[in-house]
Order: sequence, then C-alpha cells, then structure tokens
Amino acid sequence: MRFFSDNAASVHPKVMTALAAANGQDTAYDGDALSARLSGVFSDLFETDVEAMWVATGTAANSLALAAMCQPHQGVICHQEAHIEQDEAGAPGFYTGGAKLMLAGGEGAKLLPDTIDSMCAAIRDDVHQVQPAAVSITNASEYGLVYTPDEVAAVSEVCKQRSLGLHMDGARFANALATLGCHPADVTWRAGVDALSFGFVKNGGMGAEALVFFDKELARDTHYRRKRAGHLQSKGRYLTAQILAMLEDDLWLDNARAANQGAQIIAGAASDRLLYPVEANEIFIKLSATEAESLRRAGFDFYDWGEGQARLVTSWNQSAEDIRPLAEAIGAL
Amino acid sequence: MRFFSDNAASVHPKVMTALAAANGQDTAYDGDALSARLSGVFSDLFETDVEAMWVATGTAANSLALAAMCQPHQGVICHQEAHIEQDEAGAPGFYTGGAKLMLAGGEGAKLLPDTIDSMCAAIRDDVHQVQPAAVSITNASEYGLVYTPDEVAAVSEVCKQRSLGLHMDGARFANALATLGCHPADVTWRAGVDALSFGFVKNGGMGAEALVFFDKELARDTHYRRKRAGHLQSKGRYLTAQILAMLEDDLWLDNARAANQGAQIIAGAASDRLLYPVEANEIFIKLSATEAESLRRAGFDFYDWGEGQARLVTSWNQSAEDIRPLAEAIGAL
Amino acid sequence: MRFFSDNAASVHPKVMTALAAANGQDTAYDGDALSARLSGVFSDLFETDVEAMWVATGTAANSLALAAMCQPHQGVICHQEAHIEQDEAGAPGFYTGGAKLMLAGGEGAKLLPDTIDSMCAAIRDDVHQVQPAAVSITNASEYGLVYTPDEVAAVSEVCKQRSLGLHMDGARFANALATLGCHPADVTWRAGVDALSFGFVKNGGMGAEALVFFDKELARDTHYRRKRAGHLQSKGRYLTAQILAMLEDDLWLDNARAANQGAQIIAGAASDRLLYPVEANEIFIKLSATEAESLRRAGFDFYDWGEGQARLVTSWNQSAEDIRPLAEAIGAL
Amino acid sequence: MRFFSDNAASVHPKVMTALAAANGQDTAYDGDALSARLSGVFSDLFETDVEAMWVATGTAANSLALAAMCQPHQGVICHQEAHIEQDEAGAPGFYTGGAKLMLAGGEGAKLLPDTIDSMCAAIRDDVHQVQPAAVSITNASEYGLVYTPDEVAAVSEVCKQRSLGLHMDGARFANALATLGCHPADVTWRAGVDALSFGFVKNGGMGAEALVFFDKELARDTHYRRKRAGHLQSKGRYLTAQILAMLEDDLWLDNARAANQGAQIIAGAASDRLLYPVEANEIFIKLSATEAESLRRAGFDFYDWGEGQARLVTSWNQSAEDIRPLAEAIGAL
Repeated sequence: MRFFSDNAASVHPKVMTALAAANGQDTAYDGDALSARLSGVFSDLFETDVEAMWVATGTAANSLALAAMCQPHQGVICHQEAHIEQDEAGAPGFYTGGAKLMLAGGEGAKLLPDTIDSMCAAIRDDVHQVQPAAVSITNASEYGLVYTPDEVAAVSEVCKQRSLGLHMDGARFANALATLGCHPADVTWRAGVDALSFGFVKNGGMGAEALVFFDKELARDTHYRRKRAGHLQSKGRYLTAQILAMLEDDLWLDNARAANQGAQIIAGAASDRLLYPVEANEIFIKLSATEAESLRRAGFDFYDWGEGQARLVTSWNQSAEDIRPLAEAIGAL
Repeated sequence: MRFFSDNAASVHPKVMTALAAANGQDTAYDGDALSARLSGVFSDLFETDVEAMWVATGTAANSLALAAMCQPHQGVICHQEAHIEQDEAGAPGFYTGGAKLMLAGGEGAKLLPDTIDSMCAAIRDDVHQVQPAAVSITNASEYGLVYTPDEVAAVSEVCKQRSLGLHMDGARFANALATLGCHPADVTWRAGVDALSFGFVKNGGMGAEALVFFDKELARDTHYRRKRAGHLQSKGRYLTAQILAMLEDDLWLDNARAANQGAQIIAGAASDRLLYPVEANEIFIKLSATEAESLRRAGFDFYDWGEGQARLVTSWNQSAEDIRPLAEAIGAL
Repeated sequence: MRFFSDNAASVHPKVMTALAAANGQDTAYDGDALSARLSGVFSDLFETDVEAMWVATGTAANSLALAAMCQPHQGVICHQEAHIEQDEAGAPGFYTGGAKLMLAGGEGAKLLPDTIDSMCAAIRDDVHQVQPAAVSITNASEYGLVYTPDEVAAVSEVCKQRSLGLHMDGARFANALATLGCHPADVTWRAGVDALSFGFVKNGGMGAEALVFFDKELARDTHYRRKRAGHLQSKGRYLTAQILAMLEDDLWLDNARAANQGAQIIAGAASDRLLYPVEANEIFIKLSATEAESLRRAGFDFYDWGEGQARLVTSWNQSAEDIRPLAEAIGAL
Repeated sequence: MRFFSDNAASVHPKVMTALAAANGQDTAYDGDALSARLSGVFSDLFETDVEAMWVATGTAANSLALAAMCQPHQGVICHQEAHIEQDEAGAPGFYTGGAKLMLAGGEGAKLLPDTIDSMCAAIRDDVHQVQPAAVSITNASEYGLVYTPDEVAAVSEVCKQRSLGLHMDGARFANALATLGCHPADVTWRAGVDALSFGFVKNGGMGAEALVFFDKELARDTHYRRKRAGHLQSKGRYLTAQILAMLEDDLWLDNARAANQGAQIIAGAASDRLLYPVEANEIFIKLSATEAESLRRAGFDFYDWGEGQARLVTSWNQSAEDIRPLAEAIGAL
C-alpha cells in the first residue's frame, strides 16, 4: 500500500465521467463553453467576484501567481521548507525573471507574522538589497499544518503594512478546509489573500489546478504569461471539466475529508511518534531505520524524511480498511 | 460545422479508453510504468535510440527544444510566419532566457537552405550581433506545406556547416507523414533533425505532445527545465497513456490520413482559389468578404486570413460526408 | 585618419579636467555631491522636471529604458536597422526578460507613424500574439537622418493612441540637436518622448551616458534595475563629472557641431555618391571595392557597409583641415 | 574622516596619469592597443595562460563569472553574508537567468569545505530540486577575513568532487594578497579557482575591475554576455589604462598594504572590541550607540552594523597620521 504521495492516487471516477461527457467539438484554448463558466463557479464558491484560470500543475499556478505580484528585481518571502523553494526546481525564479525567494524559518513550515516583519525590517531600503514584494504561505503547510483564518489575517496585516502581495499555495487547500470547517472565503480573501493556487490533482483530479485571483488586477497579465509559459492548453475544456467535477456537490471536500480521516487513523496509532500535529493528510513520524525497514517489508511504501523520520501521506481513495493495517503495524512496532 | 482548427476536434475514443485503463495507483511524475516505456516506444518507431518526454502543449515542446539548443545570448532562425514567432506569445524568448528569433521569408512558411545560409552570412561574427545557434522548421508548415526528406536534409546540411541545431515543430507531423508516406526516421534524424515536437493534440489526443530528442545529449538538462517550467505533471501517466494510444496500431497515421483526405475534398472543390498546394490538413483560399459571409450563413466556421483570404482546417473526426457540404458550398460560390 | 566611428575619438580635454577636479573623497554610488545635481541640471536643460541617471553605455541606457516600459511578455516596436536590434547583442531581450523587438522597415532607419500603426493593427489582440508596449526611435537615426519635432510628435501620437511608451535612442542626440537648432525639449518631451538615452561617449565623453526620464514614474524601478545590472558604479561621481563637463557652456553642442561640419565637408565632395542626406555626422556612400581600396591605401579607415557601400563617421575632434584630405580623395576618385 | 567604505576613496594619481596618457584616437570597444595587452599582463602576473576582460563593476564581474558556470536551472553555493547575496540587488539572478543562490553559514562570512559538502549531500539528486553548479567565495571575506591557499584548495577539492565551478569574488583581493604575502597564483588557480573578480576600484582605481578566467573555456561566451549586459564600453581603452596602471610596479599591492596597515592601527586600539580578527582593511567592532554617537561627533564617519556594532573601512589613501586620531578616539572611549 502506497503512502508516498497523494500524487500517486488514482483519478476520481466522477472526474473520468466528466472528461467523457466533455468529449466533443468546442472552441480551443479557453474559449469553450465549460471554461466560460470557470470564473463564475469560483466566484460563487468564494462569494466574491474572482478571476480563475486552469493550469496543469501547482508549480505553474504558484509561479504564475508570484510573477503577477513580483517584478524580477524583487523578492518573495516564504518558508525555507516551502514547496516553491524545495521542490519546484527553481520555477519561481524562472517565471518571475529571476526574483529571489527570501527564506524564513518557523515551526512546521508555517510563516509567522513576526518573522515576516523582522525579515522586512532587516532589509535596508536601498537599491543594493532586494526588496520583497510578496509573501507566499502554504495551506495546509508542507508539514501538514493548517493556518486558521485568524492566522492568515495576521500574516495579511503585515503584508498590507509592508505593501506585499499575499499568495496561498493551496496544493492541499481542500485538506485544510476539511479540517477548518470554515467557509473557503474566510481563510482566503476575507483574510487578505490576493491569489490562491487551488489544488485538485492530489485530491482526485487528473491534470488540472485552479489559479484563483481575488485581486483581479493581477489576473490581467497572467493570461499572457500562461500562454507564454506553454500552459494554455488547446483543449482546455478537459481541464475545466475536471475542476467542475471536483467542485460539484463538494466532491473536493468529500475527498479531502476521506484523506484526512485516513491520516487521523495513523496519527492515533502513532501518537507518541508524531513530529507535528496531524491537521491534514500528511503524517510525519519518528521512525528508526529498522522500524522503517520492517514496515516496508510488510508492504507499506513511504518516504524517509531525514534520519530517523518518515513522511506518510494518505489519499482520497484510501478507505479506513485500507489504512488500518498500517496503523496496526505502526502500533505494533 | 467547424473548420477553425483541429484543436477544436474531440478526443479519439481510443485515447479516452486508454485514460480509463490507466486509472489507478502508480508512482508520480514520470516514475510510473507507462512513462518508463515512452523512450523505448519512440526509439522503436524511429528505429534509433531516442529520448522522449511528454509535455502538455506544443508551445512547451518547441520552447524546451529551443532552450536546449540555444543560449540566452544566441538566436534561432525561423520563418517569419512560424508558429513559434506568431502564435506562442513569446514563449521561445521566455524559455531560452531572451534569445532572439531571427526571421526569414519563404513561400508557404517554408525555410529554404539558401535563405538560412544568406542570413548567417550577413551576420557579423562579432560580439555586437546575436549569433544563431539553431534553426526551427515546421513540418507540415504553417501553410500546410510538407518538407520532404531531401528538403530537410538540405536544411540540415547548412545547419551542420554553420554549427546550428535543427528543430522540427511537428504540431502536424502526422499530417506531413501521412502525405509523405515515408518512414518517420527519413524526414527526421536521418535527414539531420536533432529534436522533434511530435504533436498529438490536434490529431485526436487530449493534452499530451511528445518531445523527441534524437540528439540525446540535449535531453539531459531538459528534464530539469521541464520541471522548472511547471510542465512535469504529477500524474504524468495519463499523458503517456494518451501518447501510447495514439501510437498503437498507427492510430496517429490513420487520424492524420482522415484529416488530410478531408482537406483534399475541399481542395478539389476550391482548386482555383488555392493560395498554396494542399499537402496536409490546412487549406488557404481566396475568399471575398461576401463569399465568407455566405459560407458562414450556411453554417461553416473558419478563420479569415488577411483580406480576401481564409483558412480552413480539417480534423481527424470529420468524415467525407461531413466535409462534402462545405466543398459543395465553395464550389457553388 | 580614422572614420570608423566616433567611438574611436579621444576624450575632450574639458572632460579630462573635470575628472581631475572630481578626484577626492566622496560618498559612493550616486550619493555624492556631483550626482546629487544630475537631475537638476537635466531638468534645467529640458525646462521640465526630469529624473536623470548615469550609466556607462548607450546599450545599458537603451535597455534600462525599454525594461521600464515593457514587461517580459510584451514587445518593443523598432526599425529593423535600429542599433538595439543590430548591434547590442540582444541586450533588450536580456534587460526586459525576453521581450520581443518587433521590426519595421522605413527609409534611412526612420520609423514612420503609419508603419507603427499598421504593425499594431496587424497584431491580433489575443494572448497568442505578443502585444507591443513601447516604440523606440533613434535620433539621429542609424543612417544619420534626423527626426524633427513634428516627426517625433507624429510618432508619439500613434503611441498615445495605442498606449505605447516612447523611447528615444540619442546616442547621437547632440548631433541631431546641432542640426535641428531647436530647443532640446522640443524634440523630446514636448513631442511626447518618455525616456531619452542621451549620449556623450561618442561626442567627447569617456564612459558616461545619461538616461533621462521625462515620465518620472518610469525611473523608480530603474534605480533597482541599474544596480541589478551591475551598472551602479561605486565611484559614480566620475561619471557625473564627465556629463556635467559636457553640458557646461554647451560643450556637447559645440562638439556635435564640429563633427557635423566635418560630415558636410565630405558630403559636399561626395554629393553624387550619397545614399542618404547627411543630417548628422555619418555619411553613407556608394563606393566600389576598388575605390574603397584606393582610399584605404591613402590612409583613410572606414567600414564597408554591404557591397559597394561604405560608412564614414566624423568626430568632434576632427577639424576641417583633418577632413579635407578625405573629401579631396573622394572627389578625385 | 570617512571610514564608510573604500569606495569613497579618491583615485590614485598614477591612475589619473594613465588615463591622461591613454587619451587619443584608438579602436573602439576592446580592439585597442592597450586592451590587446590585458590577458597577457594577467597571464604574466598569474604565471599561467588566462583570459582577462575589464568591466566597470565588481557586481558585473561576479555575475558574469557565475553566469559562465551556472545554467538558469542550477544554483550557486555562497555564504549567506556574501556580497553577491546581500548587496548586489539580485544581479546573479539576473545574469544567470534565474539561478538560485544557495546560502550557507560560517564564521566571518567564510565558507568551509564541510559546509559545502553537507549542503550538496542534502540536495536530492532529482529534477525537483535545484542542483548546484558552482561555489563562490570572497577573499578577503565580507568580514575582512582571508582564505589561505590551503583553505581555498580545500574548498576546491569539494568542488571537484561535486563537479562545481569555483569563483572567487576578489573585490578586496589585493588586501588579501597583501596579508597573505603569497604569490597571486597560489591562492587562485593553483588552489583550484576557475574565475576571479579582481577588484581595483576600492583600491585606487576609478571604474575598472578585471574578470580573470583561469578556465579559459568559460571566457568564450562571456564576451557575448558582457556586450549583452551593456558592459562592453566603447572606449574600453580607458578601463584597461586604469588596470595596467594599478598593476605596474605592484601599485595594487602597495595600495592594499597601506589600507591594511591603517586597519591594523585601529585594530590595535580596539583589540578588546573586535568581532573578527583584522586580516584586511575592514574592522568590525562592538560599539554602543552612545560610543558611536561620540565618535561621529568627533568627525568620524562609519556604518552601524546591526545593534551595538560598527564597521570601519580604511582606504589606500589614508596615512597612519590620518588614522591615528580615530584609533585614539576609540581607545579613549
């Protein structure tokens, strides 16, 4: 059983059905009937007027958002463990034309308002030092922690004081929402977020994420940048179809809840091993090399996460029955 | 009936079936079992050892290929009507870090060896002028003309003399092959092509093109560049599935033949209006505003192509019966 | 005697004297007393409030100006013979992050308003095509022709209608002014120019050009971009000193007049060979290979300019006596 | 008396004399007689065949060197206090096309071999993480510490094992050499350095640094990149003249010795306040706000360096007599 990554999970049957239903002749790029609905559907979901566009990957969504907020000679403050810093091969530097990721610490890959403020205060306001233009936070974070609406609002307050845009990497936004139980608006634009990378691929989609601009002014040039990056797919309707299927009847929340519940089963069994509270679908545990070996021999796959540590990720398509054997195996170590 | 673009066509049922069949758990990115087969399948097809990778769009394929051949301070020679110059929003400039497209003329968007040679000869060999590093040709060309193996070889000879890489934009490579009837190797690596953007999306795919490197050395960094561009999809197996389905039993050639035959029906009816010979699935004709209006009123959609001209594109899924009404309407003008 | 380029000329003694006078302790970069005067001096000269900054080269000045006007996904309309296209090694692409130079024709390297307008009209207003953001003209042009205030105003009118910034490459701005006899403001901001690369190096300076922003908003980020490009010299006061010396008592105009007068002497002797009217300090003439050979044997150096043509450039430090031998030699051919 | 920065110092009279002597007609760019000698002079100095080129600033020299070693998708390991990270406005990101500076700690801004090795070991060898391509060290370091030949060789050994290029930022290379007393070759190419930014501006020059490639292969494209960055000055002979004057009769070493001796005078008086050993011409001391205030009232200028700390820099043109008053004032605090 695979606990490597939710990227390894299958595509939800409703998404497959939506792709089949979308198959037919229509206008290319995002000129089709489905894509015409995209911003409206997200505006309804977020209860405000947004501009949304599809892209194939979270890396592209993140980088397009940052490029919209940050000139090449500026910088983006993020956590040193942020996905944009650690796992996107320098994509933000590519899309922004060389802007700098300015790295901060913080427990569980969460950025604290004071940290951001101190970083800004330490930067001389002259042309020799790169000036920050934006902040990027990840919700749920790279260690599976969730920012509450109040926490996001506190980050946003610093951003506003410092004239910084605020981007949220929501590769696992659904998992955060499933835990928070709040309205999607509360932890995004109402808390001051300007742009959101809204992930679907890890949560049952195939190859479509949404880039949602609450600050619609930022969207304008992004249409050009998306095409220039080779991300304006000519049969875009098949990306929209996936997203609409995920949003319909809150499938995105149902899937995320399933994955989160799986994580809780493991967390319960590994409560004395947890490196961080389990607030989404990722579990980070202390695990010796021998223990890891023993789990793997029993058929469980996962990533080592530095020495004596491991990362386990649950997916939308893993039932409690699927997961219990791992929980038991950990409990029995 | 739509003759705007083959991008508007539906996805071939066999591709849909392959997507369904691929649905399941597997390793993310291109670590899955299907993607592991990709280079092998293309190596078989081309009868030589190639390195192939999937990307979602032809724009990404073209730009990644050019970035592999051309440093930021260099240039790429292409036709002034080339898709990379006219319709990719500056993507080559983005991916290469600012390299220059050096534009040449030529009938029907085809580059002639002498033209390339003259351009090179006119560039002073000093640091003040951008030096070319690669040539990009499109087969079938943007005006639906086909380069024969000999023609490609003649271009390649100039490239070799001038130490230029040779890229082929094969957004409609299948349509070219269907017309040429030669082996795919003959018009690519045997004729000196270093990298090919092998298009599937216009020809029945959904969102997967192949970037095929005959010069495998060029592929090495491209793996990093693809990720950095946000084009390494986490569920890459669904892209491979499409491509494998298109290659199986020569579906790609069957589809292209169907589109080309449709184009010949129109070409036959419009023989006195043709701006270029019809060698693939695009037809460019003289058409007055009144005539265009009349065709549109009859339910046929297409692009105007400058004043008094129109572009018609046939697709894999348009049968002779579908197309004949347009042919008749043109004949009756 | 050298007629290759005004770049080959010596530095004016008054500039050397100013460098010596500037030698001493002062604040680094542009925090010194001399540099503090720079914008003021140019504001006086242009009779409007400008922001001026020094850079070492015209290439840097041009590229910084264009980067201020043009996002990476946009384009700059210029003449196909423009220095920024032909002789700056792709610098505009580097500074703008990959923007496209959109090339136009036009007699004597001058851009006509109608040409600009037609180019814009031919660009589809969609995300697939690069949209222009600025126009760059060179005064005096690369073929030594001068734009009058009315001509610049006509270009500017199109720019305003099309929302394009207007940059003037004034590598030989002094030579243009010496011919026009108008106020510097008349052919720049009063005619709609937003930014001017004001050249001094070809005209008696050593290594300092001025980048003058009439639209001061464009200057803001340019301070950062200049540093980021390695062009904020730590002993900037020696650049300011050169520029102030050139401006004092209209030395820049005196020098340009001298060079222009030299050009007229040659033009007079070569009137039946002229390819363009001689309006600044460059002379383009028909000259067979044999004739060129004969002039070179007589000790005159110059560039061939394509087959059967030559370029001669006069400099501020060449007196009538210096130049007459060449004029006579041409007359005697 | 100014202790802000050696950038504030005047230009050495011999450099001024050399500029005057160079004044005259010659070929533009680096085609002049003086520039033709540049690589030869540095080859003699370093006792090996090098390729040297002038640029106006250390920022440009550093960035050009890094761009030669590092593709846009790669990274450069440097100290987190390195000038290229802290004070160059993101220039390395600009010149490399977006490569990443990978930041390490280390006492006194010195990079230790083990630190580099650990950083490399922690980077997963896959396409998701930016792979390092080069290391940059600063000698003397940003805190005035000197790398010995053995220390550089130890860094180089890691670089070779990891296939990383090695760049030395020698903005104060002369000050380091004056302290080391070794042959310039010993601490550069003989210790494995591939490219050196050899600073002159802080040490008595006006606006010329040398970029010295020991690995000449790296120089090839740099000629194009320098022009593309607007750093190929048209009157380059005046930059060469400065450099040749600095090298003649070891003026560069004499000037550096003078500055270093001045630093020792202050270090002696502030021995109980020193934050780092004083090995070049920079002194970092503990200094309370009240003490700083008192020194400033007495006419001494310098930078605060975080709370309770100050940086003092001595220059080539400050004699023992100039400096003693500051030493005494510090002693008397």
